[in-house]
Amino acid sequence: DLIEPPLKRVEAHISKQAQSFDPAVEDYISYACGSAGKRLRPALALLAGGATGEITPAHEDLAVIIELIHIATLVHDDIMDGAERRRDQPTTNAKWGNAISVLLGDCLFAHALRLASGFKDSTICRRIADAAADVCSGEIIQTQRRFDLNLNVQDYFRIIEMKTAALFAVACELGGVVSGSDEKATQCLKNFGTNFGIAYQIYDDCLDLVGDESTVGKTLGTDFLKGKFTLPIIAMLDQANDEDRTRLSDWILRHEPEDFDRLREFILREGGLAMAVTAARRYLVEAQEELNVLSESAYQTGLSNICQYVHALLDQIQPASSN
Amino acid sequence: DLIEPPLKRVEAHISKQAQSFDPAVEDYISYACGSAGKRLRPALALLAGGATGEITPAHEDLAVIIELIHIATLVHDDIMDGAERRRDQPTTNAKWGNAISVLLGDCLFAHALRLASGFKDSTICRRIADAAADVCSGEIIQTQRRFDLNLNVQDYFRIIEMKTAALFAVACELGGVVSGSDEKATQCLKNFGTNFGIAYQIYDDCLDLVGDESTVGKTLGTDFLKGKFTLPIIAMLDQANDEDRTRLSDWILRHEPEDFDRLREFILREGGLAMAVTAARRYLVEAQEELNVLSESAYQTGLSNICQYVHALLDQIQPASSN
Repeated sequence: DLIEPPLKRVEAHISKQAQSFDPAVEDYISYACGSAGKRLRPALALLAGGATGEITPAHEDLAVIIELIHIATLVHDDIMDGAERRRDQPTTNAKWGNAISVLLGDCLFAHALRLASGFKDSTICRRIADAAADVCSGEIIQTQRRFDLNLNVQDYFRIIEMKTAALFAVACELGGVVSGSDEKATQCLKNFGTNFGIAYQIYDDCLDLVGDESTVGKTLGTDFLKGKFTLPIIAMLDQANDEDRTRLSDWILRHEPEDFDRLREFILREGGLAMAVTAARRYLVEAQEELNVLSESAYQTGLSNICQYVHALLDQIQPASSN
Repeated sequence: DLIEPPLKRVEAHISKQAQSFDPAVEDYISYACGSAGKRLRPALALLAGGATGEITPAHEDLAVIIELIHIATLVHDDIMDGAERRRDQPTTNAKWGNAISVLLGDCLFAHALRLASGFKDSTICRRIADAAADVCSGEIIQTQRRFDLNLNVQDYFRIIEMKTAALFAVACELGGVVSGSDEKATQCLKNFGTNFGIAYQIYDDCLDLVGDESTVGKTLGTDFLKGKFTLPIIAMLDQANDEDRTRLSDWILRHEPEDFDRLREFILREGGLAMAVTAARRYLVEAQEELNVLSESAYQTGLSNICQYVHALLDQIQPASSN
């Protein structure tokens, strides 16, 4: 509610971006930008801006840029995953094939950085490009290590910090920078974004095991079948005795649909999911603690409330009392 | 020779870029950057810089950035074309698959724009991002219009101006901007790059019909089989009588290998290739005329010599006397 008016303007800006392109390309851009996501990153950028000053049109530009980069990565992710649907709509690759979708992601990405170069302070553009490079690097490492049973908890956190948390972190950090926040506040916003992003990715990982297929919008076990190790699996492997580890490893390497059912049942029963949820909650708490550095405001509370929202989502998959 | 020392430094910089990435990603970046291309765009950026001032480290940075963007587009092109080899090396998609290659292109692209944000003058970063968006948009239109017999000469020029000439133009333009060139010189360098880039793309198109497969590094007829209309084909369709147009159209739409042989023979005999070569020469001459605005220098001559080099390449496929 607090940021509803600027968030609406961000949405309107996003839907107008297609006009910056050649008419022959407009429709593709419109379609990719139109599949209303949760706009979580724009919300964080605006709240971080409000928590350190006034929300200005520059914050809205920042929010648009970050979301365009996010959309570009989704377009490319869907190609790599061969995904047919996203948010109840056909993916761009399902509609127009991989070639157009590769280029469409590139266009969105180039456009985001073109907008970013409009900031007088060139640090902003650099930090956005840094985050984009981190996101892609994290995804490369994830792809490279599919089905790699040596992937440990530390590797996992390195990957999700790059592929997911980097963009959340830069949204929060630059929300502050655009407000002219001091170094301490900027750093705490960045840390907030990193911790929040890690928690959010862990939550998203858990959905591959226990999500509601109709709301999540993808089939359970998709990550498992593609050899992407999620935290519940990695934590379970880490804790298991030799015999259990062998069984889990066999299921993972064979990855038939029935192996997913067995693994899922094992992980829910033996506490892998609970461990992941506990880890996510810990990162949320760390994120919230960072907020103490900021002066009290409705926006600071807003940032905290987004953490509470994810706490509540985690409750739905693993009630806090059972942890 | 004139730009050999800075061009060597550019090459060294390019090979060092991998170090900016996570160690797990370095090898991919090194491989993509290592397949020594002709470095035509860096050469133009350096010559444009020299023709309007002194070649400085900033020009070398510019050259690196432009080449990284070019490499990123090649990585993505090879995915879309399903190409197995480029310059006698396996493509990144042949080595590591499409998923890694999509991300690798994205990484290179993000990194190029991160470097571009290092220029104090934010116009430079914006113009580079503009050019990148044009390149991708041009490729989208090309992909969208494969096998579209309504594609006319004008559409063709619009596509190649975006997908190829935009990056040449920005290399030349910004070479001048980095030297602090005045508006008139900057504009003439940009026009030079546009005209040169168009000529170069027409030449490259002709190679699909008459190139030496061992030097071009791809099989003749690749563009034809993929429905990418090159200028010799479009010019021929434009000039043909109804009967010939029907024959050409049939070959194009059926696109069996023997259709390529028939079409190739027809186009060589009936002057389609000659028309394309003539057009390329015209753009080279226009490029060279732009150079008259610049004061005389070895670098101005160097830019002209690059045009002469392409004239000579065109001579090899269609001797000037036979035009």
